[in-house]
Amino acid sequence: MSKHVVDKILVINSGSSSLKFMLFSMATETMMAKGLVERIGMPNGNLAYQRDGEAKTEQTIQAENHGKALAMACRMLIDPACGVIKALTEVDAIGHRVVHGGEKFSAAVIVDDAVKAGISECSPLAPLHNPANLGGIVACETVFPDTPNIAVFDTAFHHTIPKHAFLYAIPSAYYENLRIRKYGFHGISYQFVAAAAATIIGKPLEQTKLIICHLGNGSSIAAVAGGKSLDTTMGMTPLAGLIMGSRSGDLDPAVVLYLAREGKLSLDEIDTLLNKQSGLLGCAGTGSGDMRELVAAAAAGKESAVTTLNMVGHRAALYIGGYFTLLGGADAIIFTGGVGENSVPAREAIISRLAAIGCRLDPARNKQIIFGKTGLLSTDDSPLPAIVIPTNEELMIARETFAILSRQGI
Amino acid sequence: MSKHVVDKILVINSGSSSLKFMLFSMATETMMAKGLVERIGMPNGNLAYQRDGEAKTEQTIQAENHGKALAMACRMLIDPACGVIKALTEVDAIGHRVVHGGEKFSAAVIVDDAVKAGISECSPLAPLHNPANLGGIVACETVFPDTPNIAVFDTAFHHTIPKHAFLYAIPSAYYENLRIRKYGFHGISYQFVAAAAATIIGKPLEQTKLIICHLGNGSSIAAVAGGKSLDTTMGMTPLAGLIMGSRSGDLDPAVVLYLAREGKLSLDEIDTLLNKQSGLLGCAGTGSGDMRELVAAAAAGKESAVTTLNMVGHRAALYIGGYFTLLGGADAIIFTGGVGENSVPAREAIISRLAAIGCRLDPARNKQIIFGKTGLLSTDDSPLPAIVIPTNEELMIARETFAILSRQGI
Repeated sequence: MSKHVVDKILVINSGSSSLKFMLFSMATETMMAKGLVERIGMPNGNLAYQRDGEAKTEQTIQAENHGKALAMACRMLIDPACGVIKALTEVDAIGHRVVHGGEKFSAAVIVDDAVKAGISECSPLAPLHNPANLGGIVACETVFPDTPNIAVFDTAFHHTIPKHAFLYAIPSAYYENLRIRKYGFHGISYQFVAAAAATIIGKPLEQTKLIICHLGNGSSIAAVAGGKSLDTTMGMTPLAGLIMGSRSGDLDPAVVLYLAREGKLSLDEIDTLLNKQSGLLGCAGTGSGDMRELVAAAAAGKESAVTTLNMVGHRAALYIGGYFTLLGGADAIIFTGGVGENSVPAREAIISRLAAIGCRLDPARNKQIIFGKTGLLSTDDSPLPAIVIPTNEELMIARETFAILSRQGI
Repeated sequence: MSKHVVDKILVINSGSSSLKFMLFSMATETMMAKGLVERIGMPNGNLAYQRDGEAKTEQTIQAENHGKALAMACRMLIDPACGVIKALTEVDAIGHRVVHGGEKFSAAVIVDDAVKAGISECSPLAPLHNPANLGGIVACETVFPDTPNIAVFDTAFHHTIPKHAFLYAIPSAYYENLRIRKYGFHGISYQFVAAAAATIIGKPLEQTKLIICHLGNGSSIAAVAGGKSLDTTMGMTPLAGLIMGSRSGDLDPAVVLYLAREGKLSLDEIDTLLNKQSGLLGCAGTGSGDMRELVAAAAAGKESAVTTLNMVGHRAALYIGGYFTLLGGADAIIFTGGVGENSVPAREAIISRLAAIGCRLDPARNKQIIFGKTGLLSTDDSPLPAIVIPTNEELMIARETFAILSRQGI
């Protein structure tokens, strides 16, 4: 075993009824194949599969559970016609995205029974995600009985946030007993992007100060000093902070009480309202939480869409200016995630508000840097540049998995 | 009547069981006398009274209601020995602080039945304050049957906040039907301080950009451009934003749901927890929400107090940096309110985090500017000065009252 060089790493992102997979060869950090099983447990399931550089194929399937779904995905990987490996034993390790590691997990870990129990203990903090992530791990234990599973946590990057930034100002017993505090999310993305940004800026990561905007369907911003998270906009859950596709982001906490008392909503209804019916979906009046539809409606002059775009820009600029201040200045503002990498108007709504901290938008560059391109959005004379860096969370999970196994000498 | 010059204005700030009063002569903007009735409706009431420049007197009283309390206060004002006027008819008008004017009141108004109904309609938005404020108005109608009452709203100053800053990102029906939006508070103080700041800076108010920190038992920050509020940290209620004496300020909205589900607290218990048991009181471990006790405990090395002071500084600096950005730069950061005017360590915790936006603390100045002094806290080479300006909400209410009556030609 000790002579074997770790190379092929399977990355799994398991949702409640979906399973995303990606196979990497780490010698060259090449993505060999990827796919997605949807509607697990339902009669009309779907399996999408794509070999690197080739067209995507889709097939209707029926997968009773995540184990069956994974087995179907794996048959594609070893299929003589469309596969990329000869046998599943070629997979050296499996890296799993796990959303919530609570205070227990400050780095990626090899999964054992104690780790599974720990992930399960964090489920009340992420009831939609952690049980599904565990489901993916259990599925792998069945399909790959001899392959190590590594849990990579979306919260772990934020373990460096100091206590005065992660505590809420409520009695300390609620932190001690109920673990109510800011955890932060999108950490896998921040870790990837921070490393890439240091290379682009040409400074050692340890000397960088970065404001990273991960904008997608879920959105957050992090203040990152020397590669370490100092603060972030999401909180105990991914509901806090920025305005998102269907999430409200920040609210006066009294609004929640008011919705219950005056709006006569139950706790479950409020939860659904704030997480699934708010944000762009609730405000733009397009019937959608998609930034592209909001932008189209705003361009067509729909007033609620214009206002919503300004809400997005105002809220993001508030945090960017705040983090610039808390970091004691910054080397760059980084945009990443689906919206951050592609939405020209969303970036304009944000960057047009940042002149006071030295970041001025170059409209022509903003139009050019889309579809996975890396590049500058700000003018050459901006002391604080805005840069797009596409994220790659799956590769980051693969890197973390690789690093743990390499350290272990497996 | 039209020949009479308006001069003496009584200012009333009526709480649920208290009544604060102050009599001004507007010819010189002089405070002639002031007082406070406490524990109205209780057997052990107290009436404090003080003539300008003299010592305070106190007496035990029993006032069944606000009308009786006001009558006792007025006896002091016309008392031959300690009074300042000969008869109550010398009072030209009465200005009332009213906390919540909702969307209805964007400026001070003369009270009539429709205004009283409007204040009452806003009571669900400020259930502790508006009914008490109305109680003070009704008391004055009894004691001063022929004197006009003017309502001055703490929310009115924020009516210039644009829609993209006052809307929460929840479905618009909740704004339209339940009036859920950001209103903002401390507007009377902001209006006073913004005018004073313009004079100090030596610019017309219309050309100023100010970040005003009103820090007291309740605390908020406002971004004020050209004398108009652009954004503020409090929200639909005074719970949002900064960490306060006993209020939490900002929270992940999901924390409220979590306290109900996992903490098994009722809505009323959560309301009490976040409004009355949180903030400095909940975090510092001093058994008090008083900044002075927190500072003493921090100086004595109590870890929770040190952390809480850093929480206060971190949260405030986040907003100051954010508002600096949204304003497109600023002329000054103004500190006011009990904590802002007097707490050297609280100001240090905030200003020490502002170097990136050009504001550097001068520790010697910080120590000197206390007890009602106006003055600079920052170094001479700071492009963005921090200035203490003591607020005077009662005088502002008197000014607003005076202005309305002067316009009316009464």
